[in-house]
Order: sequence, then structure tokens, then C-alpha cells
Amino acid sequence: MTEADARRRLVAGAADMIRRRGLNATSIREVAKHAATPLGSTYHYFPGGKQQLAAEAVRFAGETVGRMLAGQLAAGPVDGLRAFLALWREVLVGSEFRAGCPVLAVSVEEAPDEDRLAVLTAAAAVFDGWETQLADSLRDHGVADGEAEELATLVVAAAEGAVALCRAQRSTVPLDRVAARLESLLTAAAG
Amino acid sequence: MTEADARRRLVAGAADMIRRRGLNATSIREVAKHAATPLGSTYHYFPGGKQQLAAEAVRFAGETVGRMLAGQLAAGPVDGLRAFLALWREVLVGSEFRAGCPVLAVSVEEAPDEDRLAVLTAAAAVFDGWETQLADSLRDHGVADGEAEELATLVVAAAEGAVALCRAQRSTVPLDRVAARLESLLTAAAG
Repeated sequence: MTEADARRRLVAGAADMIRRRGLNATSIREVAKHAATPLGSTYHYFPGGKQQLAAEAVRFAGETVGRMLAGQLAAGPVDGLRAFLALWREVLVGSEFRAGCPVLAVSVEEAPDEDRLAVLTAAAAVFDGWETQLADSLRDHGVADGEAEELATLVVAAAEGAVALCRAQRSTVPLDRVAARLESLLTAAAG
Repeated sequence: MTEADARRRLVAGAADMIRRRGLNATSIREVAKHAATPLGSTYHYFPGGKQQLAAEAVRFAGETVGRMLAGQLAAGPVDGLRAFLALWREVLVGSEFRAGCPVLAVSVEEAPDEDRLAVLTAAAAVFDGWETQLADSLRDHGVADGEAEELATLVVAAAEGAVALCRAQRSTVPLDRVAARLESLLTAAAG
């Protein structure tokens, strides 16, 4: 395993642990164990410790979703929406409702110190990135500026909230209902 | 302080701690300290320990919001929506974006044991209760069954997600954008 591979596995492992348990319950020790990497090496890769690893995990999740979104938005905003919601549905069903979104997870735990602020800042940038991708696509399809921004934020907020509702109710019904409404909304605006 | 008062303070204190830090980082010891109640007495009030206290905190938050919602929905679904979103806005601004929703918080931390499932079940019931209140109001204002359910779930999911986005971005912009879209949606459906 190269250094880059080991680093990537730690980041992906941290993202998975955070989207299941949240940030407070994620330990660098367990992430290292999970990635079959010596604990000492994690401090070599992440001298800033858990908060640095968490910020990278958030950015990793943001980029993974963002790349998929960019690909699907090429076919139009409704295709992008469908792919975005399908991805969350897969995370929920594939984990038996035990995993959600790591970006949301870090956003709902208080940030008392500066280190933690770096994680929150990473989360803010990820949400902003997804919103911007969706808003740009809507604008490209003739939706006015303000409406495009509002719709894009609604999509990201509703998807994130629906994932939490699905985890609580151990059912995909909330996400399916949100998908139906958002799809008719985006089709009307940009169809 | 009567027993009922002490119990209520512990439940309200737990709800506040959970909506700030999440469930894992909430300790019964700190809740007791915060409520100025001897630690021993918490086990008297909550023999099921932290998970029982957390489940009651979730139900307490559910009932507080549910009562307010019932009052405002009497004037119609759009008034209910406005009050629901205004409440979350107040929580965010009043806490400088450090507090969110305790019901969402417990929904995004993995539930490995049966005790924890009781908390998740309480959260599912709270979300379901808010959705039902909104859907009933929409139906009363002439919205068809399926659409009323979809809109109600969209409102709850989008509000919950927007609160998380606002905490990450330390700004009310996500909630304000979501409010604009949801209000025009509900006005068109039930206005």
C-alpha cells in the first residue's frame, strides 16, 4: 500500500464513521484500525489530528458527490436532482438506515474551539458547492437568478433533512415524498 | 422546587444539550449540573438512564413545537409554515448558530443497541407528528391526499436540513431561501 493509498483509506474510513456515528463518537484510533493502518502513521498523515482528518473527510464526501452531480447535471437539472436523491437513497438502503451524510453530521455538533471550526468551514463549503452546481444548472436552463438559488438550496436542505427523517423512521418514504415534490418543482421551473 | 419541576428542568436541559452537541456528547452528569439537580436524583427520575432522558427530551421538543404548530395552523397552512420556520430561525439566531433541532440530532447518530432504538423511535414519532399536523391542515384547505403528505414531508425535511446548513454556514440565508420557496409552494397549493 502506497502512502497515498493509506491516506485515502483513512479519509474514506473517517467519512464513513462520521456519517454513521457523528463526529464526537468518531475516534482516530478506530478509523486507523478500520483502515488497517498503524495509529502512529495517522499523525504522520494528519498532524492536525482528528479535526484535520474530519475536515478532509468532509471535503472527500463533498467531492465524491460533487463529481457525480456534475456528470448528471450535464443532462439537465432534473437528471441531476434524480441522481442526487438516488445517491442518498442508496446510502440509506445499503446501510439499513445506519448511515447518512457526514457533512450534515459535523454541522449539528457544537463547535466550541477553533479546530472544530475548520470542520464546520469545510461543511459550509461543501453545501455551498452543491447548491452552486444545482443553481448554475437551473440558470443554464432558463431559471431566473434568485429562483435558481432558492430552488438549489431547497433541494440540498430537503435531501439532507429527508435522510435524517428516513434514518429515524427506518423507511425511504420521506425521501420518496421529497423526491416527488422536488421533481415536479424543478420540471415546472426548468423543464 | 417540586419533583415535577426538577424532572421538567432535566428534560428541557437534556433537549438543549442534545440540540447543541448531539446525543453522544451529552452526559447525564452535565445535564444534572446544568439543571442544578443532584446526579443521584436523575436516576430516581430516569431509571432507564441517559437513553430514557434523551427519549423524553425528544418528545418534549416534539410537543413544544407541535403545540405551537397547532395554534398557528388554525389560521391556515401558510401561517403554520411561517411559524414553524420562524421558530427554527429564532433557535439559530438566539444561539449564534450553536443550537439546532434535538430530534434531528438523535436521528443522525447510529443506534447500535436497543436502548438507543427507543430514542430513535421517539424521533420518528415526532417527525411523523409534525408531518401529520401539516398534512391535515393542507387537506382541510383542499389539497389532495397524496400531495398534502408530500408537501408536509417536504416542509419538515427542508426545515430540518436548512437548520443544519445554517449552522454550517453561520447564516440564515439557507433557511430564508427555503422559506421563500415553501411559502410560494403552499400558497399555490392551499391558498
